[in-house]
Amino acid sequence: MPYFDAASAAPLHPVARQALLASLDEGWADPARLYREGRRARLLLDAAREAAADAVGCRPDELVFTPSGTRAVHAGISGALAGRRRVGNRLVVSAVEHSSVLHAGESHAAAGGAVTEVPVGRTGAVDADAFTAALGSGGSGTAALACLQSANHEVGTEQPVAEVAEACRAAGVPLLVDAAQSLGWGPVEGGWSLLAASAHKWGGPAGVGLLAVRKGVRFAPQGPSDERESGRAPGFENLPAIVAAAASLRAVRAEAAAEGARLRALVDRIRARVPELVPDVEVVGDPVRRLPHLVTFSCLYVDGETLLHELDREGFSVSSGSSCTSSTLTPSHVLRAMGVLSEGNVRVSLPAGTAEEDVDRFLDVLPVVVAGVRERLGAPATSPAATPGPDSLVVDALGRRCPIPVIELAKVIGDVPVGGTVTVLADDAAARLDIPAWCEMRGQEYVGESPAAGGGVAYVVRRVS
Amino acid sequence: MPYFDAASAAPLHPVARQALLASLDEGWADPARLYREGRRARLLLDAAREAAADAVGCRPDELVFTPSGTRAVHAGISGALAGRRRVGNRLVVSAVEHSSVLHAGESHAAAGGAVTEVPVGRTGAVDADAFTAALGSGGSGTAALACLQSANHEVGTEQPVAEVAEACRAAGVPLLVDAAQSLGWGPVEGGWSLLAASAHKWGGPAGVGLLAVRKGVRFAPQGPSDERESGRAPGFENLPAIVAAAASLRAVRAEAAAEGARLRALVDRIRARVPELVPDVEVVGDPVRRLPHLVTFSCLYVDGETLLHELDREGFSVSSGSSCTSSTLTPSHVLRAMGVLSEGNVRVSLPAGTAEEDVDRFLDVLPVVVAGVRERLGAPATSPAATPGPDSLVVDALGRRCPIPVIELAKVIGDVPVGGTVTVLADDAAARLDIPAWCEMRGQEYVGESPAAGGGVAYVVRRVS
Repeated sequence: MPYFDAASAAPLHPVARQALLASLDEGWADPARLYREGRRARLLLDAAREAAADAVGCRPDELVFTPSGTRAVHAGISGALAGRRRVGNRLVVSAVEHSSVLHAGESHAAAGGAVTEVPVGRTGAVDADAFTAALGSGGSGTAALACLQSANHEVGTEQPVAEVAEACRAAGVPLLVDAAQSLGWGPVEGGWSLLAASAHKWGGPAGVGLLAVRKGVRFAPQGPSDERESGRAPGFENLPAIVAAAASLRAVRAEAAAEGARLRALVDRIRARVPELVPDVEVVGDPVRRLPHLVTFSCLYVDGETLLHELDREGFSVSSGSSCTSSTLTPSHVLRAMGVLSEGNVRVSLPAGTAEEDVDRFLDVLPVVVAGVRERLGAPATSPAATPGPDSLVVDALGRRCPIPVIELAKVIGDVPVGGTVTVLADDAAARLDIPAWCEMRGQEYVGESPAAGGGVAYVVRRVS
Repeated sequence: MPYFDAASAAPLHPVARQALLASLDEGWADPARLYREGRRARLLLDAAREAAADAVGCRPDELVFTPSGTRAVHAGISGALAGRRRVGNRLVVSAVEHSSVLHAGESHAAAGGAVTEVPVGRTGAVDADAFTAALGSGGSGTAALACLQSANHEVGTEQPVAEVAEACRAAGVPLLVDAAQSLGWGPVEGGWSLLAASAHKWGGPAGVGLLAVRKGVRFAPQGPSDERESGRAPGFENLPAIVAAAASLRAVRAEAAAEGARLRALVDRIRARVPELVPDVEVVGDPVRRLPHLVTFSCLYVDGETLLHELDREGFSVSSGSSCTSSTLTPSHVLRAMGVLSEGNVRVSLPAGTAEEDVDRFLDVLPVVVAGVRERLGAPATSPAATPGPDSLVVDALGRRCPIPVIELAKVIGDVPVGGTVTVLADDAAARLDIPAWCEMRGQEYVGESPAAGGGVAYVVRRVS
């Protein structure tokens, strides 16, 4: 049963399992105690810290273990902001950061801080110059902290971290890199100041994050603290899991070059074949500067939830950034920031060891599944009808969820003459993203939106072809 | 090799190990995902929550899993204080709470909040009436939150939780109970509002705490949050460890009555035999209203670090609240609040399954070890000399660490006549606790302290027998 959602959580690496088992017996005691069980635990903790620091590319005393990647991000951001309070209170983040970064930003804003979001282009990457400009250039306008992921968790695009780190150094702004998705593949290059990561993304166990804070970075841990983990991560150390995390990081790194190349080829195959096999698909993210194992695409006229459900029935576990698969019924903030189609969105992230046959079977199954969903939803044929009707039409899709507003639009666009308009009334949040994205894919003109009289939004599209 | 420090961390219970192993394979995926691996993880998480809630005595939707007991305490206190911000900002705690509670209190005070510490008697228990008085009686003086441990982690004394909970209910003040040391032995009785606990104290794995917040308690989680654990504990769930924690809680509870009675008898034996076997010992904590598995005593004229080291050499792992065993060189705040001797302090906490022979061997070894340490330190014979000298003597123990100031005092007390005084000059923090405690044990009169001319403190003792 192929599991293609390694970016959410990777299955436990055999080395992690082995190390966890061994340290359940050797590493359950309090490493702060002086008796033999405590000393043994301390040795294991020290060794794990050295191994992890080596993989991160920092000194052991710069690295602490946290209970998760999310907690590492939260502690890193709050501690770095507090350490730079005298400089200012502005946090700079990319618009496509992991939710843990954005939540920390919201928390900072709620406490009176400022947050600058740097937009991304259609591939999901920030522009290094735009990011640099957002840092400010000295004086009270200078950012207190900047955050940039090493690679995006939803579309796989790598960010220009080394370039941004250089700009941050020049501006005197510490840079926190969220390396959750990439640390298993290799160290983060460039002069970052803080780095956060999460073990269960590389095949380590849950319950372990890393936070590295370079010497010389002003850092004031927030909230109650204790004597553990240099005062940066309170609470009894989750030692067996820490040992397993460090051991598996070393193991996946040893395999990273070969396995990365193999998965990169499989992802290239998906990127090339999906648009050939499935009509009306947009493959998103940078095709080259990307994580080796991750690809995301969106299918017009398909709802993500049904698509995931059907793929699950066929044995494929994938995730989606479509609005209908989120608890808030809004599309993923990443897809929104990229301005790409969100309906029928599928993220495939291959765990290490993924079999080639499983990818091929996925490519066999996907077209059938998408066609089935489209048929049930009454999606339109690819070419619009040839007999033009009135100059303008209004489609009422109020109360209808993604992908229905786009399907209704596609059904009638051929009913207006070239130059005529279709106005779609919709109150589903995904429409704001998906109607312009449909226009771009179909070569039609997106005119704009305005509030609709009866509630919702009126989206106007002009037929140009 | 007998490990007698279960109160720091209990060895992993076989059921925890088994459950952890099983759920490494079944429970590594994201329980928020809808595919089969996610659904399986969600089922495991739901079942663990039900089992833990059942053991705690609350509803499953009142309980969340946190990364540690410390984090449960921190989240519980900050969330409850924020939820009651309109009522006031005063936190009431006992003086002998776990450091996680006191650290949360310090953090609260640093942010402008008030903290009232309720003192304890010589057994380590708070007086329920004194605790009630500290709650205030309506109006702006009413406490926002009260915290009381179910039983003390250093001396084992049970607190009058049910009585205090009743008083809190009457005063309209939520009560947070830190049940870290007792939850494995049974549920906390009484109408508490919040409860925190830690799995590795009952033989579960590290990395799991519990926080229960009763419905109706105003609670506003602080810091960044996400959609996990009802918004009260951000970050990917440590699922295999959570499953193991819940399974082992159920298992230790099934054994609690029998094993508790067995360990209680062993502790009674230690409590009775130690003062018979070792001269100049004070056994502390309530002899009856106490945890079944824990006993603490202090030995005059012995330094804790050497004692622990010697016991470790003999194969016994115990902990200590003596100043010389802490990184801050101050005696445990618990012993200080109780006003009992801190030098040569030993805490014995027996893990489930402790063999009777090991306890007996400990009782064989202890007198030899204590005598050896005393001999090396030049501790005085028990009876003071019979030939009185001058009316008053000054002993300069400046720069000398515990237990030297007390040893020097004991050496010369016989040199002054009854009615005469000995003044001890000392700058070790433990002297403040240990000189009065020595007086109480020896039937001498502690006159008081004053700043010494050359720095340090002058402690005056009058010989009365």
